[in-house]
Amino acid sequence: MSSNLLPPESCINGSIGVVIVGATGNMGKEAVKAVLAQPDMTLLGAVGRRYAGEDAALIAGEDTPCGVTLVSSLVELLSSLKTSGALEPYEHWVGIELTNPTTVMEHTNSLVQAGFRPVIGTSGVEEAQQKTLNRVLTSASLGGAVIPNFAIGAVLMMRFAKEAAQYFDNVEIVELHHNKKLDAPSGTAHHTALSLSEHHPHPFNAALVKEAETITGARGAEFPNGVRVHSVRLPGLVAHQEVLLASEGQLLTIRHDSFNRQCFMPGVLRAIRGVTTHSGLKVGLEHYLQGKE
Amino acid sequence: MSSNLLPPESCINGSIGVVIVGATGNMGKEAVKAVLAQPDMTLLGAVGRRYAGEDAALIAGEDTPCGVTLVSSLVELLSSLKTSGALEPYEHWVGIELTNPTTVMEHTNSLVQAGFRPVIGTSGVEEAQQKTLNRVLTSASLGGAVIPNFAIGAVLMMRFAKEAAQYFDNVEIVELHHNKKLDAPSGTAHHTALSLSEHHPHPFNAALVKEAETITGARGAEFPNGVRVHSVRLPGLVAHQEVLLASEGQLLTIRHDSFNRQCFMPGVLRAIRGVTTHSGLKVGLEHYLQGKE
Amino acid sequence: MSSNLLPPESCINGSIGVVIVGATGNMGKEAVKAVLAQPDMTLLGAVGRRYAGEDAALIAGEDTPCGVTLVSSLVELLSSLKTSGALEPYEHWVGIELTNPTTVMEHTNSLVQAGFRPVIGTSGVEEAQQKTLNRVLTSASLGGAVIPNFAIGAVLMMRFAKEAAQYFDNVEIVELHHNKKLDAPSGTAHHTALSLSEHHPHPFNAALVKEAETITGARGAEFPNGVRVHSVRLPGLVAHQEVLLASEGQLLTIRHDSFNRQCFMPGVLRAIRGVTTHSGLKVGLEHYLQGKE
Amino acid sequence: MSSNLLPPESCINGSIGVVIVGATGNMGKEAVKAVLAQPDMTLLGAVGRRYAGEDAALIAGEDTPCGVTLVSSLVELLSSLKTSGALEPYEHWVGIELTNPTTVMEHTNSLVQAGFRPVIGTSGVEEAQQKTLNRVLTSASLGGAVIPNFAIGAVLMMRFAKEAAQYFDNVEIVELHHNKKLDAPSGTAHHTALSLSEHHPHPFNAALVKEAETITGARGAEFPNGVRVHSVRLPGLVAHQEVLLASEGQLLTIRHDSFNRQCFMPGVLRAIRGVTTHSGLKVGLEHYLQGKE
Repeated sequence: MSSNLLPPESCINGSIGVVIVGATGNMGKEAVKAVLAQPDMTLLGAVGRRYAGEDAALIAGEDTPCGVTLVSSLVELLSSLKTSGALEPYEHWVGIELTNPTTVMEHTNSLVQAGFRPVIGTSGVEEAQQKTLNRVLTSASLGGAVIPNFAIGAVLMMRFAKEAAQYFDNVEIVELHHNKKLDAPSGTAHHTALSLSEHHPHPFNAALVKEAETITGARGAEFPNGVRVHSVRLPGLVAHQEVLLASEGQLLTIRHDSFNRQCFMPGVLRAIRGVTTHSGLKVGLEHYLQGKE
Repeated sequence: MSSNLLPPESCINGSIGVVIVGATGNMGKEAVKAVLAQPDMTLLGAVGRRYAGEDAALIAGEDTPCGVTLVSSLVELLSSLKTSGALEPYEHWVGIELTNPTTVMEHTNSLVQAGFRPVIGTSGVEEAQQKTLNRVLTSASLGGAVIPNFAIGAVLMMRFAKEAAQYFDNVEIVELHHNKKLDAPSGTAHHTALSLSEHHPHPFNAALVKEAETITGARGAEFPNGVRVHSVRLPGLVAHQEVLLASEGQLLTIRHDSFNRQCFMPGVLRAIRGVTTHSGLKVGLEHYLQGKE
Repeated sequence: MSSNLLPPESCINGSIGVVIVGATGNMGKEAVKAVLAQPDMTLLGAVGRRYAGEDAALIAGEDTPCGVTLVSSLVELLSSLKTSGALEPYEHWVGIELTNPTTVMEHTNSLVQAGFRPVIGTSGVEEAQQKTLNRVLTSASLGGAVIPNFAIGAVLMMRFAKEAAQYFDNVEIVELHHNKKLDAPSGTAHHTALSLSEHHPHPFNAALVKEAETITGARGAEFPNGVRVHSVRLPGLVAHQEVLLASEGQLLTIRHDSFNRQCFMPGVLRAIRGVTTHSGLKVGLEHYLQGKE
Repeated sequence: MSSNLLPPESCINGSIGVVIVGATGNMGKEAVKAVLAQPDMTLLGAVGRRYAGEDAALIAGEDTPCGVTLVSSLVELLSSLKTSGALEPYEHWVGIELTNPTTVMEHTNSLVQAGFRPVIGTSGVEEAQQKTLNRVLTSASLGGAVIPNFAIGAVLMMRFAKEAAQYFDNVEIVELHHNKKLDAPSGTAHHTALSLSEHHPHPFNAALVKEAETITGARGAEFPNGVRVHSVRLPGLVAHQEVLLASEGQLLTIRHDSFNRQCFMPGVLRAIRGVTTHSGLKVGLEHYLQGKE
């Protein structure tokens, strides 16, 4: 490994060594900045083909370089880190995967083989793959995580909605996103609706009258157990969702607004710290929400 | 007319004599109370088969009687009022029709023949009937009104949404009602969506990406010109609607909440006063919103 | 006890015998209807001086009488119930206290002495009194409850806000009530703010800039630990509160809307059933929210 | 004027020649991009000391240069434009001033002397200065504008609130901003509150009970005529305001959310086009909101 791939002394500030895969995407750039700002973490490497050879912090929008040069190959990065002894000072090695569904498993496997604990923010890891990954991680005594949503507020919204649904027989979800979003309902709304319907002993939203849609679609998407989801798409919006739980005379609304990708960083950091505390695979940020850091 | 049908002296407090048809329904009872409280109005009669023979104010929930006895026949009431000379003290005679679509035209015709200006809050008066009514009223030099929505706030919401739509290319409507409502979208949402699409030079909500509904109905009901409407139905709610207008970086939301039928009374009173100021038929409360009373 | 104070056979439908004190107030009337509708509860008596001698269900607005006559003295009611053997069929005896701060303790003591488990919805039971009550109830092996807020949604809002506050360093509360409310902030807002500030390791809403109020009061009421509360008072509103929790790029909002007193009934019924399951005094509906009934 | 200060032929695409003063601030950069995208406008020059010598479009974040070099002196820029004949092709010359209160008047005067119509987005132009400016502009047959808020949605919110206030006797304003904002209430809230109170015949929010603040500030800032304003400050937020208008049984809410500075651009463009259509000074974007462009 050419020495310029090693973090300079000035960057070594914590006991968790972190590699970021997909460091030049929108999430990746925020992750670079967030990791660099943690006293207990050190950025060991960053993969981002587009800007290979440039400084990861500068590309992320910082004014001063961090000394970590973007590289195009994760495999080469991992091998250099290992042979150079650059990993030795760190108690834990964590790799954040933020690329896309077609490359996520390949990167994850490389990370695990190199002894890195993976934090996977990319979609596309199927249930069978999660099971295999869990086995591999467990036998290697390594922790890992698949995190569908890094926004702590969104995860709490889902948790609270599920808890509140024990006490309310009616629930509808309104999710609002920017008008460049491809799918409706959103992944978070889909996940929330399924999680609500899963454990409810009887269908939500029992019909009191014979309802009629005079224009198709007015009453939204119907999920199992009667949960309804409405998807609004407008420019100006980012990612917003509200869960409305109602009974006679009262309404409980739990709403989450994401305004930008910074909102994911506290969750990313929790997951990095979280995977160092267990072995095997955890799915969902909720496993790392046991109180204030 | 038996003298007990005449309002006692104590009730005569204004120059507009009012008859309420459908005085024992939910809207009718509120209208009785509202009219009785106006210094410039006198309740001359009230039709409500169910409680015929009882005092209109007591049935409406007041603690003290108003002296106006509920009757079951509008025709008989009008004839008694006329022959007894009970109408003479009043400058204007107004009849409020609050029954149902099957009886509204019969009642309206009776009122107009007796020289009363009709304020029609019942749905079911079709466009052809409105035209005929307009001709009849105009030739009789009488004013009249069909009012689809008496809530001033709802009428302003529609007016503002229409005005704002000149400046925004994206608009969606979310309407929320109690879960005993039969139709979705609501009449007000339907009316708002059509009014928005009517005058817009090009379709709203132009697609920026190839959007897909993974579950049918998620994106709501699509109206002409691309306006989307989402209908939420939950117990605890009454009648609520919000119009969301958006462009890059901003969102303008106009929302109206009706919590109970009292919200219609300022509009009912405006319409009663309004029909005394013109001849012919006006459709919509907006004609009577030219400033604070 | 004169036999007309005893519930007729037709009303005996459950194993919990219930007495309602303050049965002719707004809350009391709803409670009468709610208890009568439960298969596991029997309304044994109802105290309401104003309508003494009338049927409790009719006064509560039901169309058919329930056979329980309103009485003016709780002490006499309890003594009649006891001597007549009317209590014997019931496994548990519960008394709901819904009067006012000046009479609440006297009624509570009478209930407990008669072997009734008290459910207290009236404010004004001070901490010292709660301690005494707890001792008395414990030694009598009876359960009892002081419930500041019967709305399940409001209690969940407070619980969720407290839990979420572990993950957010910024929080403000906006509460909105009708404009006949005397105090600002509301009791619920006060309670929420204190509960949030109590366990937070450091102040919320740390100042990033030197903020200035150009008009006093703009930034709301400041509670310990920096929690801010804003009180809106408008006609048309009933009781609404939202807790806004924020961090960079995201906002989590938990809102509860009460539209009418029906919203308290699920909580009243939970508390009635709840006090039969333990001894000693519990404060707060949260003790009885352990899942769906 | 050195030829590199002239827009290249490829940039000349419209009949309004525009100069932007403060082109490297956040608003200025958006304005550069917005003007460059208009077929009827040509960017003639851009002042921004910080990046003098660099291409205005590149600094604004565009991928390709626009050929307009940032300069540090407005006076020199104007003189070069004039002597070089660069202004001749354009029907109208407009100057956008986006710097700060200390320099705004100096820049404005330079622009007007050079025959440019000023669009002033900077605060700090006092009423006396506005009067003088109006006289100067009128006698020069030039139009100009002071625009306190370029967000069309915010201006409509204020207009609608004022119109709706004719029909509602109760109004409160809740404004929410990021927690780096210095003043509370915000300028927009201040302006809205004053505009509401100005023309209302009697005070809003008449007291129905003797209200008490148990903690100072709970009821917000009180403006003339009883209008109340509440200021929430939280990270994650940008600029949001809602006006709540209420009467018995109903609530009309008009809310505006600004998510980023792009939301100001439609207003900036309207003002640029607007000042070419009149002479004298207009204050407020509302003068240019007479329908869709």
